[in-house]
Amino acid sequence: MSAGNGRIVAISGGVGGAKLSLGLAHLLGERLSIIVNTGDDFEHLGLAISPDVDTTLYTLADVVNPETGWGRRDETWTFMRTLATLGGADWFRLGDGDLALHVERTRRLRAGETLTAITADVAKKLGIVARVLPMSDQPVRTLVETPEGTLGFQDYFVRLRCAPVVKALHFASAGAARPSPQVLSALADPDLTGIIICPSNPWLSIDPILAVPGLPDAIRTSGAPVIAVTPIIAGQAVKGPTAKIMGELGLSGDAVTIARHYAGLIDAFVLDRQDAALVPRFDLPVHLAQTLMRTLDDRIALADACLQICATTTRRR
Amino acid sequence: MSAGNGRIVAISGGVGGAKLSLGLAHLLGERLSIIVNTGDDFEHLGLAISPDVDTTLYTLADVVNPETGWGRRDETWTFMRTLATLGGADWFRLGDGDLALHVERTRRLRAGETLTAITADVAKKLGIVARVLPMSDQPVRTLVETPEGTLGFQDYFVRLRCAPVVKALHFASAGAARPSPQVLSALADPDLTGIIICPSNPWLSIDPILAVPGLPDAIRTSGAPVIAVTPIIAGQAVKGPTAKIMGELGLSGDAVTIARHYAGLIDAFVLDRQDAALVPRFDLPVHLAQTLMRTLDDRIALADACLQICATTTRRR
Repeated sequence: MSAGNGRIVAISGGVGGAKLSLGLAHLLGERLSIIVNTGDDFEHLGLAISPDVDTTLYTLADVVNPETGWGRRDETWTFMRTLATLGGADWFRLGDGDLALHVERTRRLRAGETLTAITADVAKKLGIVARVLPMSDQPVRTLVETPEGTLGFQDYFVRLRCAPVVKALHFASAGAARPSPQVLSALADPDLTGIIICPSNPWLSIDPILAVPGLPDAIRTSGAPVIAVTPIIAGQAVKGPTAKIMGELGLSGDAVTIARHYAGLIDAFVLDRQDAALVPRFDLPVHLAQTLMRTLDDRIALADACLQICATTTRRR
Repeated sequence: MSAGNGRIVAISGGVGGAKLSLGLAHLLGERLSIIVNTGDDFEHLGLAISPDVDTTLYTLADVVNPETGWGRRDETWTFMRTLATLGGADWFRLGDGDLALHVERTRRLRAGETLTAITADVAKKLGIVARVLPMSDQPVRTLVETPEGTLGFQDYFVRLRCAPVVKALHFASAGAARPSPQVLSALADPDLTGIIICPSNPWLSIDPILAVPGLPDAIRTSGAPVIAVTPIIAGQAVKGPTAKIMGELGLSGDAVTIARHYAGLIDAFVLDRQDAALVPRFDLPVHLAQTLMRTLDDRIALADACLQICATTTRRR
């Protein structure tokens, strides 16, 4: 590893971002802060659910379900099965153990605690030393505009399994949100040596973070280089609907388009080795790495590559 | 059985009352209405919990845990175990399947439905034909006055395991509550042929029901005889702290005291055969029966005895 004693900020959505965050956490421990998307958050069955924050927590605590990349391992499903017999909504699957976090978070939010404070306490109880930071303590809600109308994110993503065509994305209430003090503090840290945009879906997972007023400026005015890791390999998303959405938005579904999406924000791009032929098409420094992370070793290796890239990248702004 | 085509109202607390209600439901089906104590209800972890209503529902639906008499059989405990790792309150044990009812009820109450409507719908989904009627749709909260201060009911009953000495009981907000329309309608039914106070704790489980303004009058002005089944056998409560509380309140811990507690309300008393020697000490008609209900047959037999007693009891008022 190559980050010296510097601190790193990761900017992340759900499963893919959490995998790289886990690799970074292995190398950096408490020197890592992860700013996590909360645009996917929603209230369901009266419970406050934060899918990307939870995926990050479960992944870093090594309690995540390794088959899905979200939810808890060794989970039971008695709640969901019983809820169905009572006529309750069962399209969003909540495991019995997972439910403990939702119930406890909902209770604490209602008691007036911030999502940031609750997340920090849960992370501590789960033995996580990296800092997991929700992007904002104010609610931002990703809405998906489709030919059938505007859908809540989880309606689109889980209930309708990303089937509707995406015409546009909106981040409701983003204008009234602000980055949490902890997010601003992490980005303003004089020891910050790099900001890594994780291989998450730029439109669904990273744009909501960048829609929080003041957050892009805090990234730009930090002293650290910003790099992004591709979520697209050989024109395919590793997971989720990134390539499908890019097509629906009239964009070419390749990593070059991803880098262009972040133009003005990033100083270098991490491309998968399989896409080496694309290198000449980028107008910023590009580094090749194995970005597919099947094993823990893969995650640590990609994290290490990212730290080296941060250490050698020059601020372009 | 002996109730003809008449209707019966049972007045019930938790486990003991639910057992007799189950026997009555076997004999009466939809001709049974059960008015259930909600003084034990409380909000816990942000969830609206109605212990006596739930015990009644689970017992009548034959999904109750036969070992405890409350909660669900074949339950799992992943939620509770996980909640403990997050530092959540785990003194009130909520099974994973049980939780489905609490989450769904809480959601529907917040959406503006009444506890009565939600309970009726859940009963229907569980295949229950008898009518399970919460005593009121307004919250009434049983408070236990002890030398250590005033305790919420579940604090006293579950967290402190009934250890504190009971100086008095209060039913907070009872003055602002009213019987639900369904309760009043069941008691005013011209086909009503009997009202049976189940073998529940008079102070903890039946008095909160009788504290709802208008409910005792609705019992008295109904055309039906009122009988009570003893919750005390040979000076011992079948379950729970009845005898302990009686002693703490300075009362003799026997069935005679129970009957006196209901003086002016009941027309006959059902005493356990083991207490036959006490018969001369009652100042109202007394009937002997086997009141301990170990098996389903015991429950049906006691229910049948109660129906026969209702059929032969003369109104004393």
